[in-house]
Amino acid sequence: MITGNDPILLTPGPLTTSPATRQAMLRDWGSWDAAFNRMTQTVCADLVEIVHGENDYVCVPLQGSGTFAVEAAIGTLVPRQGCVLVPNNGAYCARLIRILQRLGIAYVELPLREDEPVSAAAIEDAFNRDSRITHVAQVHLETSAGLLNPLDDIAALCQRHGKSLIVDAMSSFGALPIDLRKGGIDALVSASGKCLEGVPGMGFVIVRRSVLDAAAGRSPSLALDLQDQYAYMQKTTQWRFTPPTHVLAALRCALDQFIAQGGQPARGARYMRNCAALIEGMTALGFEPFLKPAVQAPVIVTFHAPRDPAWNFADFYTAVREAGYVLYPGKLTQVETFRVGCIGAIDANELHNAVAAIGRTLACLGLSVK
Amino acid sequence: MITGNDPILLTPGPLTTSPATRQAMLRDWGSWDAAFNRMTQTVCADLVEIVHGENDYVCVPLQGSGTFAVEAAIGTLVPRQGCVLVPNNGAYCARLIRILQRLGIAYVELPLREDEPVSAAAIEDAFNRDSRITHVAQVHLETSAGLLNPLDDIAALCQRHGKSLIVDAMSSFGALPIDLRKGGIDALVSASGKCLEGVPGMGFVIVRRSVLDAAAGRSPSLALDLQDQYAYMQKTTQWRFTPPTHVLAALRCALDQFIAQGGQPARGARYMRNCAALIEGMTALGFEPFLKPAVQAPVIVTFHAPRDPAWNFADFYTAVREAGYVLYPGKLTQVETFRVGCIGAIDANELHNAVAAIGRTLACLGLSVK
Ligand SMILES: Cc1ncc(COP(=O)(O)O)c(C=O)c1O
Ligand SMILES: Cc1ncc(COP(=O)(O)O)c(C=O)c1O
Repeated sequence: MITGNDPILLTPGPLTTSPATRQAMLRDWGSWDAAFNRMTQTVCADLVEIVHGENDYVCVPLQGSGTFAVEAAIGTLVPRQGCVLVPNNGAYCARLIRILQRLGIAYVELPLREDEPVSAAAIEDAFNRDSRITHVAQVHLETSAGLLNPLDDIAALCQRHGKSLIVDAMSSFGALPIDLRKGGIDALVSASGKCLEGVPGMGFVIVRRSVLDAAAGRSPSLALDLQDQYAYMQKTTQWRFTPPTHVLAALRCALDQFIAQGGQPARGARYMRNCAALIEGMTALGFEPFLKPAVQAPVIVTFHAPRDPAWNFADFYTAVREAGYVLYPGKLTQVETFRVGCIGAIDANELHNAVAAIGRTLACLGLSVK
Repeated sequence: MITGNDPILLTPGPLTTSPATRQAMLRDWGSWDAAFNRMTQTVCADLVEIVHGENDYVCVPLQGSGTFAVEAAIGTLVPRQGCVLVPNNGAYCARLIRILQRLGIAYVELPLREDEPVSAAAIEDAFNRDSRITHVAQVHLETSAGLLNPLDDIAALCQRHGKSLIVDAMSSFGALPIDLRKGGIDALVSASGKCLEGVPGMGFVIVRRSVLDAAAGRSPSLALDLQDQYAYMQKTTQWRFTPPTHVLAALRCALDQFIAQGGQPARGARYMRNCAALIEGMTALGFEPFLKPAVQAPVIVTFHAPRDPAWNFADFYTAVREAGYVLYPGKLTQVETFRVGCIGAIDANELHNAVAAIGRTLACLGLSVK
């Protein structure tokens, strides 16, 4: 199977997976079969272990994209009379708010700039201003800009104030350290096709068992009822509805590689090297990262678009794609940007090559960056 | 890649797919990429064409299993003050009722036996008894027993009475003839991993455009909002949230094979031959089908379990699996049964071989059927 001509995806998922991960999809699995259900169990156990949740947490896998798992977590875990604080510094925070609006759950928005991490102090102020708040829905790594929010501080604060914390860790899980033993986190949401380097098609929620058990019958949706999904799996070892069998097999294989390569510390270190190579190379070409280094997560980097009036992202994208690299558009509301991912089964060499291709493309299109 | 030792799945999805379909998953696709988005568009166009909906219908693909698409169709298309009639002859009909209960939508159940198709007359009686009814949610092929409901009659009746008909065509789409030009159907729901012989991981809804357009803002869920999914796709050519890229690529490839093999008529004819081979062989072994031939759909066959007191499905399953075939448990509430699927990338030879393996297993386990 020749895949050498496919472009490298420098996007925050779907991303470039390893050949072994894709080859794991060459087999069909029956959803009632013991071998398949053991695979589900080992995947769930490994996911819990990555964030050190062995004692108090369970993993509930869910069909669909990451957003499905986020909505499932909120709809299952937040009581109808709850009130959720959402620190908002980007598009995925805004999506949390849209979900809360649809579900008819009260919320309080804490508005922030797209380059400004939330501080525990600002969250504490919000708690003090509004005693209705029962929950915090926090995006760990705001992928819209690549911004890192201080999860440990937020978790400690929520624990102190007795607020329930639900974390969208979609683009950080597996790459950045998260330690549930420190306390304060009730649920963590992520998906197969991000830093674990599986293919897209399923999400999962790592949730405190006691919080999940208390949520029986609460979800306004059948398909997105995490508690029902978990209870059925406990009883039968099977998924409630047809599982994405090939996606799960790919995730099992991707997790084997994740573990063999050294787990989260090694994954995070590789992405750090990728990110450093990217920023160094792009800066040398004249590009300016949107975020300050202190708040830049090593997952996706937002660059200011060239000031050149001839700049047009679609043309640039197409030319760079022809050179073998798929970039990502910006997702900021105020400034013209584009994004380059550093995640997937790639190393710093690929980022060096991508930067070189971007340099050649600029020359070819006659664009000046500054 | 050696896959010759994998068992053949005689299950109603996930099923045995062709090697070409699985190999289509060996490439990674960017979700923003034009080539991928063209693939989505051609898949949707082909799905609409299979049921002759070109003029008035659109296809909305949705991440997740088939149930997610069923819940999305109901939550998006039925107004909160609607009332849905559910003819109930099996587990998937019962699931429709659970979905309606969760969504808080009024419904009327029309209870039937598990071997009894609904009749248009019974539905008409229900309309006459209860003028609140605005919609009918109808399972076309009740996979719990393999029972065929008379869709054309039901559609004609709904059209005459001005009721909106939503059809769960999960296990019939692509195999049995459905012609939207005849009128009366507002939405048809199915999924990638059934008779189209793709892999599981996405559903889709073929819906009358005018009905979808009227549903803006109605869905109580963000993830399961079909109208929002469609509107975003129209605007951007992209899926709203990360698509199951590899699952879609497999479906594209499976549809190419579907079309090359002669489309629905050919697919239906192959399944008929598979089903005939299965029933003939199993009957010769002494097994008795649960359904009468007139209402048996050529997709999955329910057999009465042997009367032998030594019968145990789990042991039988394991032994037949070792011989290379994966069977399916029964899903009926009253009688002890098991099921054998006739769908997937298999022909009558495989069913002959499966029957032979079942015969050897009976001998081996010393089971008598009668
Ligand atoms: C932080 C964050 N939350 C949620 C999502 C949504 O995930 P999906 O696109 O799989 O629905 C993403 C996707 O990139 C993300 O980065
Ligand atoms: C008639 C019918 N409806 C709904 C479903 C549910 O689909 P899924 O298991 O993909 O959620 C099935 C699955 O076999 C089915 O046969």
